[in-house]
Amino acid sequence: MTDLFGGSPEHTLSNADVSFLDTTLRDGEQAPGVSLTPEEKVEIAEALERAGVSVVEAGSACTGEGERAAISRVTDLGLDATVTSFARGLQADIDGALACDVDGVNLVVPSSDRHVERKVGSTRDEVLDSTVELVEYAKDHGLWVEVIGEDGSRADLDYLAALAEVSLDAGADRFCFADTVGHAGPEQTADAVERLAALGPVSAHTHDDLGLGVTNALAAVEAGADLVHATVNGVGERAGNVALEEVVMALSHVYGVDTLDTETLYDLGSVAARTTGMRPAPNKAVTGANAFAHESGIHTDGTLKDDRMYEPYPPEAVGRERRLVLGKHAGRAGVRAALAEHGLDVTEDELGTVVERVKDLAERGRRVTDADLLAVTEDVTGRERERRVELVEVTATAGSATPTASVRLDVDQSVLGPDQYGDDEVEDGTVERVASGTGSGPVDAAVSAVRKAVGGATDVHLTAYHVDAITGGTDALVTVEVTMARDDDEVTVAHSDADITRASVEAMVDALDRLLTDEQPRLAPTTD
Amino acid sequence: MTDLFGGSPEHTLSNADVSFLDTTLRDGEQAPGVSLTPEEKVEIAEALERAGVSVVEAGSACTGEGERAAISRVTDLGLDATVTSFARGLQADIDGALACDVDGVNLVVPSSDRHVERKVGSTRDEVLDSTVELVEYAKDHGLWVEVIGEDGSRADLDYLAALAEVSLDAGADRFCFADTVGHAGPEQTADAVERLAALGPVSAHTHDDLGLGVTNALAAVEAGADLVHATVNGVGERAGNVALEEVVMALSHVYGVDTLDTETLYDLGSVAARTTGMRPAPNKAVTGANAFAHESGIHTDGTLKDDRMYEPYPPEAVGRERRLVLGKHAGRAGVRAALAEHGLDVTEDELGTVVERVKDLAERGRRVTDADLLAVTEDVTGRERERRVELVEVTATAGSATPTASVRLDVDQSVLGPDQYGDDEVEDGTVERVASGTGSGPVDAAVSAVRKAVGGATDVHLTAYHVDAITGGTDALVTVEVTMARDDDEVTVAHSDADITRASVEAMVDALDRLLTDEQPRLAPTTD
Repeated sequence: MTDLFGGSPEHTLSNADVSFLDTTLRDGEQAPGVSLTPEEKVEIAEALERAGVSVVEAGSACTGEGERAAISRVTDLGLDATVTSFARGLQADIDGALACDVDGVNLVVPSSDRHVERKVGSTRDEVLDSTVELVEYAKDHGLWVEVIGEDGSRADLDYLAALAEVSLDAGADRFCFADTVGHAGPEQTADAVERLAALGPVSAHTHDDLGLGVTNALAAVEAGADLVHATVNGVGERAGNVALEEVVMALSHVYGVDTLDTETLYDLGSVAARTTGMRPAPNKAVTGANAFAHESGIHTDGTLKDDRMYEPYPPEAVGRERRLVLGKHAGRAGVRAALAEHGLDVTEDELGTVVERVKDLAERGRRVTDADLLAVTEDVTGRERERRVELVEVTATAGSATPTASVRLDVDQSVLGPDQYGDDEVEDGTVERVASGTGSGPVDAAVSAVRKAVGGATDVHLTAYHVDAITGGTDALVTVEVTMARDDDEVTVAHSDADITRASVEAMVDALDRLLTDEQPRLAPTTD
Repeated sequence: MTDLFGGSPEHTLSNADVSFLDTTLRDGEQAPGVSLTPEEKVEIAEALERAGVSVVEAGSACTGEGERAAISRVTDLGLDATVTSFARGLQADIDGALACDVDGVNLVVPSSDRHVERKVGSTRDEVLDSTVELVEYAKDHGLWVEVIGEDGSRADLDYLAALAEVSLDAGADRFCFADTVGHAGPEQTADAVERLAALGPVSAHTHDDLGLGVTNALAAVEAGADLVHATVNGVGERAGNVALEEVVMALSHVYGVDTLDTETLYDLGSVAARTTGMRPAPNKAVTGANAFAHESGIHTDGTLKDDRMYEPYPPEAVGRERRLVLGKHAGRAGVRAALAEHGLDVTEDELGTVVERVKDLAERGRRVTDADLLAVTEDVTGRERERRVELVEVTATAGSATPTASVRLDVDQSVLGPDQYGDDEVEDGTVERVASGTGSGPVDAAVSAVRKAVGGATDVHLTAYHVDAITGGTDALVTVEVTMARDDDEVTVAHSDADITRASVEAMVDALDRLLTDEQPRLAPTTD
């Protein structure tokens, strides 16, 4: 096999011994719009520890009081991981880190002429001298020290090597090759790391501005780097840092190199997404919503025959599950499997028609939900389902006053016990139920009213409520997706409307209706 | 320099002659939840043509009538690009493609034993025979033919080479090495492509399941592939295909290889994001919202000294602009620059306090908007601005009835012409304005009421309205961000509230207030 990363016999990817420094709490937090509370930093740090990350860069102590308090919260956890702080080339920054009781510092000093001269207003020699002083100071205070040559990929390699040499001679534990601006290719990365690795332990810090974050991390490891800097979901300045989970899975799957506990990766990604507020794109490797979802007919059909037909490795390897999704490329096998999940069987002819109708829906730009599939199937088979709960009216008031809503539902007598509709009038087998509610907003108030109208004690639960981001204008269509569950049944319904309240209530009542069978009366009397 | 991708002297990345096949309209559309209308396909195809893509795979003719109509719309455009359809190894699929008047087909035949035996239920020999027949059939009908060996990265390489050989002998224009499930590493990709390229023209189709999409595309090119399959923003099944814009920029920046017109890439990415509904993550290279945004103090400071301090290449190279953003890592230089944009100057002492306060805000998890910065600065400098428009009350009703809202504003007399407040009562220099409005939903109605209350003729415009996606529950806090403009001034205000109506109106009134100067009366009489 071609040895692409030019490794020498001692350094090849397949026998690499590599650990990770995670900088989600520092470089990740520098992403525009990301700001973590101390509690959130703790939550991420604990997830990193579960995954087995070796070094957790907890923040940048020089940022201020709040940040130092947050870093201290992380050092207080007593993690197995080495906990560090970022420090600029200033003694005050090292003192700030010491005040947080960290195990070590990531000492960042300029290395390219652009940074040495234009940013810091210094000279190459001055930087060498001050670096030696700072490393000695930090080591004297018992810290683990990694010196990072900032903008190393645009530095003169001779100077970068000199900087690494004086750092290591002064006692630094390692030197980091930093592709700060995501400028390098793998050849340059390998050349630089190989040269630096001859001097002592080397780390690699790569960014994804050219989509080469993973490539360069691997090139660095093959060239002798044994500590890879990364962030969860690749969150970070600009296009972000290299994504931790991608390097881990590439090393594991392609090169058979085990590093972190891969089964924790999805949970780690979810914690980071929630706390940073940066949701990975659906098509993000490992942690994206669609990473193990199959929609097209060919893919769904193949996956039903053999799980691994369209997957490089099973989703369980990263703590996830496979999803089959219906859409415009839906095929017979996928639709039949989806219907079976709802306990429905159809003839071959009916199946063909259902598939066509599902594709039609999708071609009009709709995501096809459970409710859509069931509605189409009922229509095609003629086995029409009587609605058991129907929304007659909803009114919600919001603004400066307490958000208040009322709903009027028609509920089929069959889902009520004979003693359960009390004085409610029965007409054509239908009981009218009216209830009102208040809430933190009009949607919340309306949902509370629906809950009351169907009886507070119902065993139907709202398990997910999602509204797509709204852009374009105040009259834009809002799509609300509601998932409701009852025992083992779960149904997802989406409704679009310019009025978010109406969309939410319509979706919720539809989902409720789908979940109510006539096996036993389930609804309690209204409480309003 | 190490030659990482093992190229022979004829094939090195820096002298590569490579074109692109874009499959956003086919493989991209197979992403769960993506469905393009014919108009959207046309719009993407036209953007691809502007970028200079060589081959546009317009869809999969076998999907159905609607899809064939959409493909025909693309072929009708008369693009310079070769327009193709995906076809399974069935004559009917080629006939379907011919019916759309395409220039060529991407003929997909199984190549791994898993696909040959388990998916199609065939044998290696049968696949060879049928492939020859189909290639001859397609060539007889005047089509450009690329044979794709599906799941090629998990196929026996000897068999894959045999499949390529019979395809090319039968007249196929090229053979594609497909890493269908994103399984391969760059070494394997290079080995396979090198072997196949000895037989004839080779394409590479890579996926990003391990974050190696770009790595493998580059490895393939260095090994002799001259056509790269990609999708805009990397949209596609699971973790998606390799992102077109990333391969283009990596080739351009690292290897000096010019392919597409890079200045169209951001526009192309925006068109794809809007039409597919798949917004790239903020930290997506090239097309993500933050790809050229700088927040941290160090980065902002450096960027103000030298544009290229923290960028591998200027944003203009891909048709974008640089953004400076304030956050918890804000520094003096960045804040001073942001204040200057609003025509404000502060003393050094004041600047220090403003920076601290901005960081405080951000540490509490807030994105710091213009309005936040201005409010902090006014407070710090004591140069307090009198509010000119204040929201006293808003009420909105929605649901089954016509969405209706009313607002009550206190408006400073100074921004009204003496003849403009008519009979409105003036008290303490303030005029009370009340207006009502209807709309497509409660927010729209409330916005209409605000518009009327400040006079329909005002020259203040709502230029952007955005609501973050809501997840978690119906009582979740909703963050509304409103951008309003007046002449050359623009201001962005964010408000969070459990009530979307209240958040929207508060943000809008705040923005309005910021934009009203006392230079001249601007408000017209109320119309309600």
